[in-house]
Amino acid sequence: MELYAERGFDSTSVAEIAERAGLTERTFFRHFADKREVLFYGSKALQEFLVGGVEDAPQSLAPIEVIVSALVGAATGFFEERREFARRRQAIIAANTELQERELIKLASLASALASALRKRGVPDQTASLAAEAGISLFKVAFQRWVDDDGESSLAHIIEQSLREMRAVTAGQRRPAPAGAAQRHPGHLRPSSRSPNRSE
Amino acid sequence: MELYAERGFDSTSVAEIAERAGLTERTFFRHFADKREVLFYGSKALQEFLVGGVEDAPQSLAPIEVIVSALVGAATGFFEERREFARRRQAIIAANTELQERELIKLASLASALASALRKRGVPDQTASLAAEAGISLFKVAFQRWVDDDGESSLAHIIEQSLREMRAVTAGQRRPAPAGAAQRHPGHLRPSSRSPNRSE
Repeated sequence: MELYAERGFDSTSVAEIAERAGLTERTFFRHFADKREVLFYGSKALQEFLVGGVEDAPQSLAPIEVIVSALVGAATGFFEERREFARRRQAIIAANTELQERELIKLASLASALASALRKRGVPDQTASLAAEAGISLFKVAFQRWVDDDGESSLAHIIEQSLREMRAVTAGQRRPAPAGAAQRHPGHLRPSSRSPNRSE
Repeated sequence: MELYAERGFDSTSVAEIAERAGLTERTFFRHFADKREVLFYGSKALQEFLVGGVEDAPQSLAPIEVIVSALVGAATGFFEERREFARRRQAIIAANTELQERELIKLASLASALASALRKRGVPDQTASLAAEAGISLFKVAFQRWVDDDGESSLAHIIEQSLREMRAVTAGQRRPAPAGAAQRHPGHLRPSSRSPNRSE
């Protein structure tokens, strides 16, 4: 990560990584197929974590709530402590097209694993696809906001806020209500203990 | 397309494509960077079409409605006449990981172009991202359904239906109501002339 940040992903060789880490190249390749995979090392664990979250979610939750609870679980158990790491990683990925593509593939396979996990809970095929795709879309937007954010908002909080905004957006509102702020079309939103403050 | 369908994408060479089309390889490469790009030839035109649809949409529409009207416009003006082509193309892509990755990149850049076009209409940053991502998610699901569908439903119709389902899913319904059918939690949804029939 240090080398990628210092001199760019393309200009860093496996030999240099191995040297910085005090390993042989041979050992490097025992752990990673190539230097790109260093940045995607956690993907499998993340997917298992999310699928586990879907499996363990209470049966009373609606599909999108199952997905969001799994995402919030991963935010707390996976990302929250590693914001600086996530920031550096995101900056490296943003600077390289090949890495962006790899990241898209990761997100697409997360969506597909989440949709399968929903189907195993008895969620109909189409609903499972839509809930998983919508969930990954909002995760993508929330994650970027968390990484860009200078404030102290937790990723879990931003994900929950993004769900409310996604609801408002798909319902056809002009703009999502910021957390706790006035809502333009309150009738469009699901009644929620979190929302009101209709001071507008 | 014939060659890709007959013998698979990987086993087809540019020389063979050029021969089948009665062209020289040189002419092929004047039009396409590589054999993959043959399948993504329409991407640029599609993106321009969609962005044009966003620019031309009435100011009265909410962001998600702008996106969906652009998608419906593309469905009618771009895809409807080419269902057999779309089917064959989708089958070729589904059989090849590299092509699936390229398709993901295409969809991600469509989402990003649509979000920019919304921002130019004055839609706030975050709303624009969420509406564009949600729109592309539902397009992905709708397109696959259209390609798989044996029936006579138009892509435009399936897109509009998928928007209603996406609304129901993000609102936290257990399963989306099929067009005109009973809703489990009617209170979660935006009141709409399309919804009721609360016979459950």
